Amino acid sequence: MRPERSETVFAGRYLSVELERWAGREREIVVRPEVVAIVAVDREGTVNLVSQLRPPARRELLEIPAGLVEPGEEPLATARRELLEETGLHGGRWRAGRCFWTTPGFARERVHLFFAESLERGDPAPDDGEVLELVRWPVAEIRARLGEIEDAKSLIGLLLYLSESG
Amino acid sequence: MRPERSETVFAGRYLSVELERWAGREREIVVRPEVVAIVAVDREGTVNLVSQLRPPARRELLEIPAGLVEPGEEPLATARRELLEETGLHGGRWRAGRCFWTTPGFARERVHLFFAESLERGDPAPDDGEVLELVRWPVAEIRARLGEIEDAKSLIGLLLYLSESG
Repeated sequence: MRPERSETVFAGRYLSVELERWAGREREIVVRPEVVAIVAVDREGTVNLVSQLRPPARRELLEIPAGLVEPGEEPLATARRELLEETGLHGGRWRAGRCFWTTPGFARERVHLFFAESLERGDPAPDDGEVLELVRWPVAEIRARLGEIEDAKSLIGLLLYLSESG
Repeated sequence: MRPERSETVFAGRYLSVELERWAGREREIVVRPEVVAIVAVDREGTVNLVSQLRPPARRELLEIPAGLVEPGEEPLATARRELLEETGLHGGRWRAGRCFWTTPGFARERVHLFFAESLERGDPAPDDGEVLELVRWPVAEIRARLGEIEDAKSLIGLLLYLSESG
């Protein structure tokens, strides 16, 4: 389906706002790059999370590793690259999970979820200005600690991991 | 935590974009009202979902009922009001679930999740222009049909409902 009319009303560095007309009504839609997010379990049996200041939330949040797909990049390649940069993890067995819309009432933003297991540890190399703290939980503690997660993609990734690993 | 500087660079009808300075870097942040979302199970043992055209996704999505908190309104009151309008469901036993950020990399938008059970059916009264199709699944079918859900808040609500009801 396509809008009857569309115009860009704000163009920022990381997002734009489109005004689209659907069935005679104007809709404000934020357009964002595609996102990848990874449930990353290493050979030591721990799930690897990152904690960082999130200005929209005005505090630090604990999340699964994630990043933005570059133009022309395959989501799996983004996922491997971002995971290596943020955590140093590499190798392992990878499986593509589902895609979902983060907030389809106003944003054209979709997350591609991946599950990676038996990852090898290494040294992170975060982007300039990216301040990440790496947090590791034994897989057996995920369920009990889920209350520490306030980020939607991380809740979905961890809940699906738990429901699929029984 | 607070930004060093903040200015509104786009003010729309349903969202605004703030440019905030954090640790010397400019961040574009979309500001939205608070959201409520409800896992709504009726006395017949079915979970009640709504299907609607979502212009950001450019297709219809199947979601748990949800709505925006009005200024000064308590999230529970919003949840009861929106559920009644969208589905006609009322009464029942209510429980507040967790809050989460839909996409904390760029949006100040938080969802308050509620679980409502033993709801009574009635007639919906959707807002002008809101076109919703009501879809009911027996609770026992949720797990098998989860692949039909592509909306983050709905995945979280249904996965938590499954994990808490065993």
